[in-house]
Amino acid sequence: MEYSGPTVFELGENQALKQAVSIFKKVDSTIVGSGDDAAVIGLTDLRFVVTTDTLVQDHDFKLEFSSGFDLGFKAVASNVADVVAMGARPIALTVAMVVTPTTTQAWLEDFARGLQAGLDELAPTAEIVGGDLASGAQIVIAVAAHGQLLAEPLLRSGAKPGDLVAVCGTLGKAAAGLDLLLHPDKTLAASYPELVDVQLRPTPPVELALQAVSAATAMMDISDSLALDANRMAKASGVALNLHSSKLFGYQAVLELAAQSVNSRGDKQVSEIDWVLFGGEDHSFLTTFPSGAAIPKGFKVVGEVLASQAPMALLDGNPLEAKGWDSVTS
Amino acid sequence: MEYSGPTVFELGENQALKQAVSIFKKVDSTIVGSGDDAAVIGLTDLRFVVTTDTLVQDHDFKLEFSSGFDLGFKAVASNVADVVAMGARPIALTVAMVVTPTTTQAWLEDFARGLQAGLDELAPTAEIVGGDLASGAQIVIAVAAHGQLLAEPLLRSGAKPGDLVAVCGTLGKAAAGLDLLLHPDKTLAASYPELVDVQLRPTPPVELALQAVSAATAMMDISDSLALDANRMAKASGVALNLHSSKLFGYQAVLELAAQSVNSRGDKQVSEIDWVLFGGEDHSFLTTFPSGAAIPKGFKVVGEVLASQAPMALLDGNPLEAKGWDSVTS
Repeated sequence: MEYSGPTVFELGENQALKQAVSIFKKVDSTIVGSGDDAAVIGLTDLRFVVTTDTLVQDHDFKLEFSSGFDLGFKAVASNVADVVAMGARPIALTVAMVVTPTTTQAWLEDFARGLQAGLDELAPTAEIVGGDLASGAQIVIAVAAHGQLLAEPLLRSGAKPGDLVAVCGTLGKAAAGLDLLLHPDKTLAASYPELVDVQLRPTPPVELALQAVSAATAMMDISDSLALDANRMAKASGVALNLHSSKLFGYQAVLELAAQSVNSRGDKQVSEIDWVLFGGEDHSFLTTFPSGAAIPKGFKVVGEVLASQAPMALLDGNPLEAKGWDSVTS
Repeated sequence: MEYSGPTVFELGENQALKQAVSIFKKVDSTIVGSGDDAAVIGLTDLRFVVTTDTLVQDHDFKLEFSSGFDLGFKAVASNVADVVAMGARPIALTVAMVVTPTTTQAWLEDFARGLQAGLDELAPTAEIVGGDLASGAQIVIAVAAHGQLLAEPLLRSGAKPGDLVAVCGTLGKAAAGLDLLLHPDKTLAASYPELVDVQLRPTPPVELALQAVSAATAMMDISDSLALDANRMAKASGVALNLHSSKLFGYQAVLELAAQSVNSRGDKQVSEIDWVLFGGEDHSFLTTFPSGAAIPKGFKVVGEVLASQAPMALLDGNPLEAKGWDSVTS
């Protein structure tokens, strides 16, 4: 990840943006794209969805591990997942960036290519419709993502007793990838490229999640961890979400070798079940469906919703600690 | 601007946000507010406007001069002005924040009160519908603002030969306020509280600008400077914007004493006409109207639009340098 050539600072905001913005593709829903005071987006419904998510250098990523391309892709993935989790199709993103005096134009354009690649793969109906470029001490990427609802909004408060709890997407791979990247044995990450790829460029199963919109009662982007987000859904819905450890074996199994490698070569001890339960950043979808609903193929049922006086997530009937990523204290 | 008590870091993201978010008022257009994966906003028209703008500590503001309240207010003002300049009424804002390990919860709540005060004064139809709180080396405030169009979008490319060029809001006061704050004589700023206030908490004349939407041919938020933004409008419209220095005398006159004070007590020499032409951050509105249009009271005609082979801004017929704020190189 070596970048050379002039810095963004040397080019100035307008020239730097002009070259980066030329990388973005246009979509039909954009009425006025970037270049004016604001963008104008067209809808086919009198509602839109909006969310924002931030990536901060040395807190959410390290330039040592992530290329500009990776970060653009990840910024799209994390924001698009939140839009989709509301039952909406992504249509427009804005990107506010802070770059440092040493950030090169080559890095910025690689980042822009990563943004577009993320849209191409995860949200081809969406466009980068605007942005802002500022200077600071570390790179910050603040995206706001917008979507159009396919039906009524899918809230995290919609889970009902008797519903099934299902997941689509990976669990624990992003956390495993992070432990591999951070491992003192720098050769380890290369042995598990798939896990590292999920950490660097997560690919939430957007189309699959959107297929579930009409049947689902609740949906969330699992960004901070299965345990933490299941607790959030349980509290918002006033229910218990009981997960079955036997249903999580499959997610653990594919992480077993990586956990052994991490443990055999360093001081930090990890376990595949901790990655699955408490690891963040996979951006998979936690969903509840009424019993008997047609659950789209690709979702895996991992538990059920129970009535409860003390709303919380359970694992095999026992309280599951709401442990995961906290973007301030982590 | 002393803040005490626990840091945001000590409270953690969820608790810190919960207390800050309780400060925000709700508006009718918000269908789902903060607390889910994304917010859902209702419209009365199948289009929405979106813009994003960022404030970075030590580049766009200094904690020595700006309170948390000031920064919340300014973040609203700068973003709302961009929405309004498209001919849209603000309805929803998201706020992505980076705070530092030393940022106190008291500061964060003062910032939240400033955001709400900015909405109360400038955009009472808008709500803070979502946000994100992250940790980093310096405070970063990235707002995305959304609006509902009142008519067709007012683009910067709409100015036509024969139109009148008009301005509403202050010119040069924010730049004067900044030079006063930065002056080595620390007593100076207190002598010109109105100028300092415009720098710290700009108040774009939102309602006045919205009154002009049906008559205007083009509108821009003057964020970087009259000269720079007039050049941008000229280029986007393929015309010349000829400003008359005699029409700017009134803006200069109210800055004359402050310029004399700055010049008499320090090394930096300023001039009131430079503040008016090349100073940014007033967030006033540069507007063009067809000749004979009913221009709302409160707008001041400062020039006219001319056909031109070389689109640019002019002052009394001579090229006006596109000089002003560049958020990367400044």
